[in-house]
Amino acid sequence: MEILKWSLLGSILSNLLPVLGSSLLFGGFANIGKERSLNRRQADVSICLLLLGILCHISAVASKGTIKNEENINSLGVLKLSRASAVIMLIAYIGGLLFEVKTHRQIFEQDEDSSEISSGDDDDATDAPVIGFTSAVIWLIGMTAVIAMLSNYIVTTIEEASESFGIPLRFISIVILPIVGNAAEHAGAVIFSFKNKIDITLGIALGSASQISMLVVPIVLIVSWANGIPMDLDFNLLETGTLVMTVIATAFALQDDKWHYLKGFNLVLSYVVIAVCFFTMKALPNK
Amino acid sequence: MEILKWSLLGSILSNLLPVLGSSLLFGGFANIGKERSLNRRQADVSICLLLLGILCHISAVASKGTIKNEENINSLGVLKLSRASAVIMLIAYIGGLLFEVKTHRQIFEQDEDSSEISSGDDDDATDAPVIGFTSAVIWLIGMTAVIAMLSNYIVTTIEEASESFGIPLRFISIVILPIVGNAAEHAGAVIFSFKNKIDITLGIALGSASQISMLVVPIVLIVSWANGIPMDLDFNLLETGTLVMTVIATAFALQDDKWHYLKGFNLVLSYVVIAVCFFTMKALPNK
Amino acid sequence: MEILKWSLLGSILSNLLPVLGSSLLFGGFANIGKERSLNRRQADVSICLLLLGILCHISAVASKGTIKNEENINSLGVLKLSRASAVIMLIAYIGGLLFEVKTHRQIFEQDEDSSEISSGDDDDATDAPVIGFTSAVIWLIGMTAVIAMLSNYIVTTIEEASESFGIPLRFISIVILPIVGNAAEHAGAVIFSFKNKIDITLGIALGSASQISMLVVPIVLIVSWANGIPMDLDFNLLETGTLVMTVIATAFALQDDKWHYLKGFNLVLSYVVIAVCFFTMKALPNK
Repeated sequence: MEILKWSLLGSILSNLLPVLGSSLLFGGFANIGKERSLNRRQADVSICLLLLGILCHISAVASKGTIKNEENINSLGVLKLSRASAVIMLIAYIGGLLFEVKTHRQIFEQDEDSSEISSGDDDDATDAPVIGFTSAVIWLIGMTAVIAMLSNYIVTTIEEASESFGIPLRFISIVILPIVGNAAEHAGAVIFSFKNKIDITLGIALGSASQISMLVVPIVLIVSWANGIPMDLDFNLLETGTLVMTVIATAFALQDDKWHYLKGFNLVLSYVVIAVCFFTMKALPNK
Repeated sequence: MEILKWSLLGSILSNLLPVLGSSLLFGGFANIGKERSLNRRQADVSICLLLLGILCHISAVASKGTIKNEENINSLGVLKLSRASAVIMLIAYIGGLLFEVKTHRQIFEQDEDSSEISSGDDDDATDAPVIGFTSAVIWLIGMTAVIAMLSNYIVTTIEEASESFGIPLRFISIVILPIVGNAAEHAGAVIFSFKNKIDITLGIALGSASQISMLVVPIVLIVSWANGIPMDLDFNLLETGTLVMTVIATAFALQDDKWHYLKGFNLVLSYVVIAVCFFTMKALPNK
Repeated sequence: MEILKWSLLGSILSNLLPVLGSSLLFGGFANIGKERSLNRRQADVSICLLLLGILCHISAVASKGTIKNEENINSLGVLKLSRASAVIMLIAYIGGLLFEVKTHRQIFEQDEDSSEISSGDDDDATDAPVIGFTSAVIWLIGMTAVIAMLSNYIVTTIEEASESFGIPLRFISIVILPIVGNAAEHAGAVIFSFKNKIDITLGIALGSASQISMLVVPIVLIVSWANGIPMDLDFNLLETGTLVMTVIATAFALQDDKWHYLKGFNLVLSYVVIAVCFFTMKALPNK
């Protein structure tokens, strides 16, 4: 159960920080002399979804904390809350998808006519999102399959590996698994970034992150609900804290429409800090 | 006391999330084909005030937490801190008001001459803030009266309702009361948004939220100080957490100068999560 | 040890809030009639660094908190984490420095040719960062010396002062010391701001803050590591919370490219709240 949660969390983190970060880093080095700008619209949709997802996690952690203080009468409240949140997250994800498929295009075509800012790069504005979207959908479906297989297959073998190598379980689940699982995706994002097609990279990285956060997590929760397993949205304090900081740092890094390698460098370093943090948590036995 | 705090908190939340969210949502649907932009200046002032307000709440919660850890010697410190914060919040609010009335206009007139970005919508830039401001003031005064009446009148009847219907007190105070109290305002905001006058909507929603946060809350605190009632700024952890996430999500949603219905959709869903969260907290007896 | 931590924290806070805030405030009053814009690029680099620094502090606090819950087996984990974080912070700082010295200039020269936004102020774009950078480096070196002397010299005399005047130690360390230490810098920042050279002011304030956060703090930590002193990155909850809110508020205040005195006013008031908060924490004996 915990391992499943951790690998889901790890997938979100690894899509936001190392995939996005190293894309920006290497892409930035490859195109040092050029002016680079990114399309904030796509990033906005994903980050809005991620912020909503964070709110759900925070409310679960905080309400569990509040309830604990007042004697552990019912943690059923948190479970109910998590399940309701999962449904809401699914609705939000479907809303975001509809927005991208149906209304998104209209808005972008609208942009060309009326906006005076994006005057020079009209064809970018029309091409990039369409490619970004289709490739994103393909990647997203692939990711889901990979995650699902990982979750089912590896969970049992992980514990043995953890014991035999002396690496903390949490570190394997949150850091190593997602990086291995995302290797193909990671490579794709970096390659697109090298070619200065940063919008596709953003579509891959943020798209997968928000998809795991808002589609996979709630589906896992609802499936385990159907099977009577008491899984909730309460990742622990540390995990939630790193998730919140990750999303805020990503949102800040993408908030203006220019980018350079330093932003990627900082995102990668943030991930190193988080990895070290989970590696040093070795002592924790079963929580 | 707690009920008063909750209904104040609920007013802030309900102005930020459902009023603003549903305005953006319905306004977005009504104007799907059009290019929509918003005036960030007004939003900035309100969000700066809200961030300052949050800082006050966080410092109260965190310093109470720190003191508790080291044996509950004096919670007088938190009380003093809250009262000082209340005075500072009032000063900040007056500063913001002076800024809007005195200097704001100069800046906007200045804008027309020198800025190259807002070249096309000069008359909007001059009209919108003036209308926005007067209507905002009227709304704000109305809100204050409504809140005051609610606080005085309903507090006694709420507890009976809570018992008879089995709905948690916290849910009534934070969710139901403010929605009923803000119904007229809510309708006004949505109507303005339908007419694509989003700046007036922002003025109403953010204006009321920052007004409650920075004017009503400190005044209530100072009045209760004068009457010797030990009211402080320490909403509990959960409430403060939701407030922080709400303001950050709102700030993020408004940070670029375009808007679409998905942002409104996400804000409304955030509010549903918060409402569910407080609804499931039924177990908590008297805190 | 605690005093050293506090004065480092205080230096970061005082560079972000009062120095930057009063510069914006007085500069805003002095140039009320003019259109004022700021160069977001420089601010971005510093704020990215500060966000990474915050992440390090949060992970230290949160992992200490998690470990504490599960019986205090080893706080060695936090120490290891802090030391690894310190090395990462140094790497990030060096990366940021290289970015500013080597690649920054290219990007700015690039800007002139290709960007259509900063068309009118080409010479500003070339002059400001160069001046900003050299003056920033000078200020930064000066600051380091001041901090180092303060740390070594004053720590012993502070405790006597605290007892004789009845002012809490924490307040002296976090509020009074850094303001005295930064007086010259503070004056410089305000003067540049009066002359409407806000980019230099930003360079001073944000540059020193990120330099203390990402250079001085890790160096202190590594030096004490070499001497076997168990210093970690865990400022307490309250201090970390104020640091997080400070950086987020600053990031928000600087996120668009206009500025006015109200932003400065709010930053200054935020600092007053924090100062009051630490002043009322008198009761805490030795933590």
